[in-house]
Amino acid sequence: MPELRIDGARLCHSLEQLGAVGSYEEESTGLKGVNRLALTNDDRAGRQLVKRWFEEAGLTVRVDAIGNTYGRRAGREDDATPVMSGSHIDSVPTGGRFDGPLGVLGALEVVRTLNGAGVTTRRPIEIGFFTDEEGSRFGTDMLGSATACGRIELDTALALRDANEISVGQELSRIGFRGSARPRLDPPHAFVECHIEQGPILDARGMELGVVTGVQAIHWRELTIRGKSAHAGTTPMELRRDAGRAIAHIQVALDEMITSGRYGAGMRATIGRITLRPNLVNVVPGRASCTIDLRNPSDEAMARACEELRARLDGIAQNLGVEITGRETAATASVSFDERVRTLIAERMVAAGIKHEDILSGAGHDAQEFASICPAAMIFVPGQFDGISHNPREYSTPEACTAGIQILLDTLVTLANED
Amino acid sequence: MPELRIDGARLCHSLEQLGAVGSYEEESTGLKGVNRLALTNDDRAGRQLVKRWFEEAGLTVRVDAIGNTYGRRAGREDDATPVMSGSHIDSVPTGGRFDGPLGVLGALEVVRTLNGAGVTTRRPIEIGFFTDEEGSRFGTDMLGSATACGRIELDTALALRDANEISVGQELSRIGFRGSARPRLDPPHAFVECHIEQGPILDARGMELGVVTGVQAIHWRELTIRGKSAHAGTTPMELRRDAGRAIAHIQVALDEMITSGRYGAGMRATIGRITLRPNLVNVVPGRASCTIDLRNPSDEAMARACEELRARLDGIAQNLGVEITGRETAATASVSFDERVRTLIAERMVAAGIKHEDILSGAGHDAQEFASICPAAMIFVPGQFDGISHNPREYSTPEACTAGIQILLDTLVTLANED
Repeated sequence: MPELRIDGARLCHSLEQLGAVGSYEEESTGLKGVNRLALTNDDRAGRQLVKRWFEEAGLTVRVDAIGNTYGRRAGREDDATPVMSGSHIDSVPTGGRFDGPLGVLGALEVVRTLNGAGVTTRRPIEIGFFTDEEGSRFGTDMLGSATACGRIELDTALALRDANEISVGQELSRIGFRGSARPRLDPPHAFVECHIEQGPILDARGMELGVVTGVQAIHWRELTIRGKSAHAGTTPMELRRDAGRAIAHIQVALDEMITSGRYGAGMRATIGRITLRPNLVNVVPGRASCTIDLRNPSDEAMARACEELRARLDGIAQNLGVEITGRETAATASVSFDERVRTLIAERMVAAGIKHEDILSGAGHDAQEFASICPAAMIFVPGQFDGISHNPREYSTPEACTAGIQILLDTLVTLANED
Repeated sequence: MPELRIDGARLCHSLEQLGAVGSYEEESTGLKGVNRLALTNDDRAGRQLVKRWFEEAGLTVRVDAIGNTYGRRAGREDDATPVMSGSHIDSVPTGGRFDGPLGVLGALEVVRTLNGAGVTTRRPIEIGFFTDEEGSRFGTDMLGSATACGRIELDTALALRDANEISVGQELSRIGFRGSARPRLDPPHAFVECHIEQGPILDARGMELGVVTGVQAIHWRELTIRGKSAHAGTTPMELRRDAGRAIAHIQVALDEMITSGRYGAGMRATIGRITLRPNLVNVVPGRASCTIDLRNPSDEAMARACEELRARLDGIAQNLGVEITGRETAATASVSFDERVRTLIAERMVAAGIKHEDILSGAGHDAQEFASICPAAMIFVPGQFDGISHNPREYSTPEACTAGIQILLDTLVTLANED
């Protein structure tokens, strides 16, 4: 077998081309960001482009009923369970060009490299992109891969609605990505995903790549607060039922929970979205909603934190005379990636002379869904500017991307040639 | 002179007809609310209706350069300075049908009653409605009356912009209410306004009407907070610069300022509007804005409160690593209404056997602008349901409205017959 080297320039060019789809200029900085919210017209344009590239690379393409799109490269023993790789191409509304696409176009670059060298692996290789990994539009992240791996039922996934009450099913049909392939996957031989770190750690520690040990537990909650709207000038403070003020108290409760140390140093909490009604300078908000994003490396600590949060919400509701109702919009347990595949990845990094270390993922990824059905693992590529992500400044160097995808190639080929 | 009795049924019918303009049904309750935000198409429709009624009542109508619309009823000595009355017909987006219209249509009912009885007063009577009293759209309340009475320059008022960067001047031209009359008024003989209380006090104390002693000081501030947007899963808490969290800390500071008692029992503070960017469940907000509405009966206490608030904002900005900039969008000193006119009003209430008491206004009103150029005073009509206002539930009984406007009539006639 010839030495296989990926083409870093070709990879970066593909990243650039996909990054131009749904791109926008950030007002304050002039930087180009990406807005390819799942199942919008821009997401459709991105999907069509990548699907065409899959076809041009000679892959057999299938789209499943939740819009996951796969390209299959035949193996010498084509009945053997395939080795899989992939990620997502949807973005948050204010995203960058690397979060997701690196894993999809990196897997494509692996296929292109194998094609160029005329190499056929023993097992088939399947690459793909998964629907609404971000969860920014329909409220549930890893939607496509969770459906493929059995955590979410197809009907449930199709019925999810966005803020405008438009469903996943409607939008898949509209953009022509409600495919006929069965969404539930037979367990593949292994799944490996390359993704940007989206955090400051690897770069701060002078590492060129990271071997991901697992993913922390994630808990998302959407709260609705009902108080009573009233005139800001005439309503005495003690008669108010201020729904917006409740959110401030929730933020303080989360702050206290974190600084208490009761849930470990890795506990994180974010109120990312707030809506007030009627949202006017001189009206006490009668209605409010907000989201809470909790992360913790430990499932046990996360469970305790959720319990305290529930009790805190009850206390705040009582104190302020408001009603707080909530629903869990996402909850994933912490995940440990497969030790054998991790070791295999680390060995390839050692062989290539790449400085690397183990790292726990702070974000959710499609690979964690695969961890429930097959040996799965991930490679992290460090980012610049403290690893800023979900932001137009998101940036990983061509060298870092190339190094990560070279390791992806080496790992996938090794796995695909296994018995 | 015959006994003059206003026609309560005619008054209520007019309130109902104007209330149908820009009306909407509140989703959660099915109640009819009013949305006649200043200088929108619905405000134009309301203006056209009331202007037609002014004309039908035989008034000489003029529209000034800021859209204030006046109807003049000639006096026996038509060169004498007029007695004025009026209020506003714009509403907050989720308003009721009494806040403003009662004072405008009540003044019209006074004119209709005088017409019906064939009475001509010594002095002319001028009634009117003033542009954007609410300040909900262009951020500055009492805009029209403040321009008429000299607190705000015409050019400044015309240049104000709404959230979509559309200016007052543009909108006045568009809806056909950029009139040719000089906006600055010569001081009238007196100004009397009838308005709903918009609070719970009169009803709770069993009062049929209130004599308004003055208006508390009002301070509005619009804050912009710049932090750094970041991934909610991967960014350690200590590296965050969370612009949304700053608003929670501001709310807590306001709570502490109020409960400290340092600014008196009448101090009120409201964060009524919040915007986060990018406003996503899994992104630490990099940008946020909010409004602060402060009220205090004492100018001195208000000045001290503003000073503490500024210091608190600096502290929060430093603690959270964010930048907080702000601009004052409204600031009016407390106002004391004219003692002679107040006494005159109270005497009319005593003569009519109406249970009444003095009351300080929690809200700003057009009459407070007139207090700077002439003897001015107000009559308050109590509201039902704890005096809820800026809400579709806003309601004052026909009896209460009729009583208030009868006192307005008696007072205006007395003033208009003075030397």
